[in-house]
Amino acid sequence: MNAAMIRYILGYVLELESVLIAISGGIGLIYGEKQSIAYFIVAAVELAVGLLLKWKKPKDNVFYLKEGCIMTGLGWALMSLIGCLPFVISGEIPGFVDALFETASGLSTTGSSILTDVESLAHCTLFWRSLTHWIGGMGILVFLLAIMPLAGGSNINVMRAESPGPSVDKIVPKMKQSASILYILYIALMVIEFILLLCGGMDWFEALTLSFGTAGTGGFGVRNDSIAGYSNYIQWIIGVFMMLFGVNFNFYYYLVLRKWGKAFETREVFYYIGIFAVATLLIFLDIRRIFPGGDAIRHSFFQVGAVMTTTGYATADFDLWSSATKWILVSLMFCGACAGSTGGGIKVARIVILFKAVMREFRSYLHPHGVSKIRFEGKTVDDSVIKSVLVYIATFTFIFFASVFLVSLEGRDFTTNFTAIAATLNNIGPGLSQVGPTCNYSSFTALSKLVMTFDMLAGRLELFPILLLFYPSLWKEAVEQHKAVRSRKARQQQ
Amino acid sequence: MNAAMIRYILGYVLELESVLIAISGGIGLIYGEKQSIAYFIVAAVELAVGLLLKWKKPKDNVFYLKEGCIMTGLGWALMSLIGCLPFVISGEIPGFVDALFETASGLSTTGSSILTDVESLAHCTLFWRSLTHWIGGMGILVFLLAIMPLAGGSNINVMRAESPGPSVDKIVPKMKQSASILYILYIALMVIEFILLLCGGMDWFEALTLSFGTAGTGGFGVRNDSIAGYSNYIQWIIGVFMMLFGVNFNFYYYLVLRKWGKAFETREVFYYIGIFAVATLLIFLDIRRIFPGGDAIRHSFFQVGAVMTTTGYATADFDLWSSATKWILVSLMFCGACAGSTGGGIKVARIVILFKAVMREFRSYLHPHGVSKIRFEGKTVDDSVIKSVLVYIATFTFIFFASVFLVSLEGRDFTTNFTAIAATLNNIGPGLSQVGPTCNYSSFTALSKLVMTFDMLAGRLELFPILLLFYPSLWKEAVEQHKAVRSRKARQQQ
Repeated sequence: MNAAMIRYILGYVLELESVLIAISGGIGLIYGEKQSIAYFIVAAVELAVGLLLKWKKPKDNVFYLKEGCIMTGLGWALMSLIGCLPFVISGEIPGFVDALFETASGLSTTGSSILTDVESLAHCTLFWRSLTHWIGGMGILVFLLAIMPLAGGSNINVMRAESPGPSVDKIVPKMKQSASILYILYIALMVIEFILLLCGGMDWFEALTLSFGTAGTGGFGVRNDSIAGYSNYIQWIIGVFMMLFGVNFNFYYYLVLRKWGKAFETREVFYYIGIFAVATLLIFLDIRRIFPGGDAIRHSFFQVGAVMTTTGYATADFDLWSSATKWILVSLMFCGACAGSTGGGIKVARIVILFKAVMREFRSYLHPHGVSKIRFEGKTVDDSVIKSVLVYIATFTFIFFASVFLVSLEGRDFTTNFTAIAATLNNIGPGLSQVGPTCNYSSFTALSKLVMTFDMLAGRLELFPILLLFYPSLWKEAVEQHKAVRSRKARQQQ
Repeated sequence: MNAAMIRYILGYVLELESVLIAISGGIGLIYGEKQSIAYFIVAAVELAVGLLLKWKKPKDNVFYLKEGCIMTGLGWALMSLIGCLPFVISGEIPGFVDALFETASGLSTTGSSILTDVESLAHCTLFWRSLTHWIGGMGILVFLLAIMPLAGGSNINVMRAESPGPSVDKIVPKMKQSASILYILYIALMVIEFILLLCGGMDWFEALTLSFGTAGTGGFGVRNDSIAGYSNYIQWIIGVFMMLFGVNFNFYYYLVLRKWGKAFETREVFYYIGIFAVATLLIFLDIRRIFPGGDAIRHSFFQVGAVMTTTGYATADFDLWSSATKWILVSLMFCGACAGSTGGGIKVARIVILFKAVMREFRSYLHPHGVSKIRFEGKTVDDSVIKSVLVYIATFTFIFFASVFLVSLEGRDFTTNFTAIAATLNNIGPGLSQVGPTCNYSSFTALSKLVMTFDMLAGRLELFPILLLFYPSLWKEAVEQHKAVRSRKARQQQ
């Protein structure tokens, strides 16, 4: 295991986070907020730690998927642990577990909150909260490796660990170049949303934080009623941009390069739009009875977008809608957005591959000797991909059942426990019943909050990078390696 | 497709069912019940239809998995459709959909009921209801093929379609002989339970019907409070026998043949007992606060047995227990009993294989070049088995989500919709909330009842035999084949 390289990259991660925390402190200065001090203190200490970790450059900069997973898992855990300190020190979120929950929720682009009154928070806190969505959406390690000459060809192993979706083989050959294009697209889309929100009469601070939340498919708002209090125009803009950020970014990449054929081959996007349209229509037909005129279509479009892209903004209290509509929303929570987007959930690509695997099983009953291949996005899906999709879902299910059990020790109702885990593991934000759009996660016990913190990070990093940190033989290996290096050094000194 | 063979075997199925319906009518005669007439009428007509179907013996008695699935799917659908007629004609369950639901619930060994007052029913009706559990538990087609010289080596294809569990390769070589041994064991265990219940002071009718319900892991009772009103002794007996009927019958088979090594290799049984014991302990620790003395352990043992073996009897209203305990029970619903038992659910063997596949994924992250095999029950699990387990669960999940959606159109609460489908698709019986142990399924709409009828049969036959009946190209093929045969005959006559 290349432990030196892991240490070195983690140093970079902390450095970058310290800069972003300092920027948040700077926003506080504009508004003359004394809470800024907490941000500058944490940023300074974190910068120092980061520089210390980077002190010694590793001799060997090659690393593999294992190291990629570990640096991703550790990196995100550290970012959450340090990123929550400004909340604690400034006194805005005094409890450490609460602050950790909120930060992990931000970084994982979940948007579940333990805050009951966000409008009373300082601007620097609101800004940092929303900025974590933006960082989480872009994937900080991939970002680092894309802009810095760190690890040569090994970058792919971080991309595999940090990027959402079953495979990242498409744009990988020229990873550095294509990652830059993807980030330009990500920022450009966000800027367009920002400008359109300004055009709607929003002030720059709200427009910026809400754009962060949409871009990262996060969902932290800056008002207590999420998006419900804004004008129809603004709700439509945010709704449309949620949908756009749920699209597989490979699609935009090919559009920008004018590779129309390749773009058309990104079939996941068409399935995504299909599911999106059908769900919107079904919910529209149902809630038409509650909302007059065009309101029904706006609410159904917005809420399908908010849940399917796993953003989690709300324009209405969907917990009051009908059972069938709520079940559609719960199903969309598990489905999620496209692979290669900033959204969470199981991902449309996985659902499609799964569905095709099921249909192949049918065919195998009818034509036992016919070898039937699954095709997706213009090529044959390898059996190993299908297996890894299925193992992913199995792992997901085990975590899901265990988490619901741990949370249900509190004794809340079935719907709350089930949807709280569905909403955190899939990185949505609000669930149903006691975690519905008008409620929050503040009243859970510390145990439940820690379980959900784990689920949010695990969900964002597609399970394995976080789970591996709890795999004993990994640490045994690391300790043994450390001992071996020491004894080698001792022998050399003799 | 060997349509003639399908027709011929279906004839046998109807014949056998008509005999069993006539026996139920006979029980009614003992008690002098006029409802018996309905049973004799249906039995007579069914016998005639069965004889008609068997009129022409097929030339070719070889058939494949496809035919095995179709005859199983069609056979069970027909048995449900005809088996419900005595209920309708006798006026005991006047509504056809209700009667169909009840019969499918019986045959699929689910035990969900639309009846509000079973104590007012005639003995022949109670007997037929419980007898369907017994038939469903043993698998009528495998039974037929085991005792009759019908289809030579093709029998395996029915066994594959009708037997629960991921693989039936173990006892297959001498299928006929081993099936007979398994049936002797099935009947012997049931007779022992029957005698022990008689020893507890139960009358023969109740002891017999409850033994049918336990043996088939069904769950229909003959009293309105299920098993709650019986003595502690009887509750313990039924509890222990539920557990015994959830064991993989291969285990008993090897014990009887004194192949201790082979029996020990049936590891699924040990996992089953382990999960059973842990769940019982956890629930005991929780409900100790509610029940004094030994009652807590009896209720927790009984309820874990009832839910995990998917029988569904109840000694207490577990809907009133704590959230965590209820979630354990819901998890056990999905887990189910051993493969090769009469129980439903996903099956312990599948869960274990799944868990091992997940752990292998972890190892592959740490040792990407190591080829890591999954071993279970003393041999390497083939990748194709793992894939089929995973595809099974994917199919299960799709059906689950679609069914909950259809049922939630009624507007009931989340817990009711979720657990109603969990309880029917996994062949349990009662769920939580409005389908809890003290409630029933009578107030659902016809649509919901039909959805659950489908789920119960699909769950019992492990999805594909029932789903295939809805696969259009199957029927297209059958029609084309029929046309081809006709035109060939026409040509020969010219």
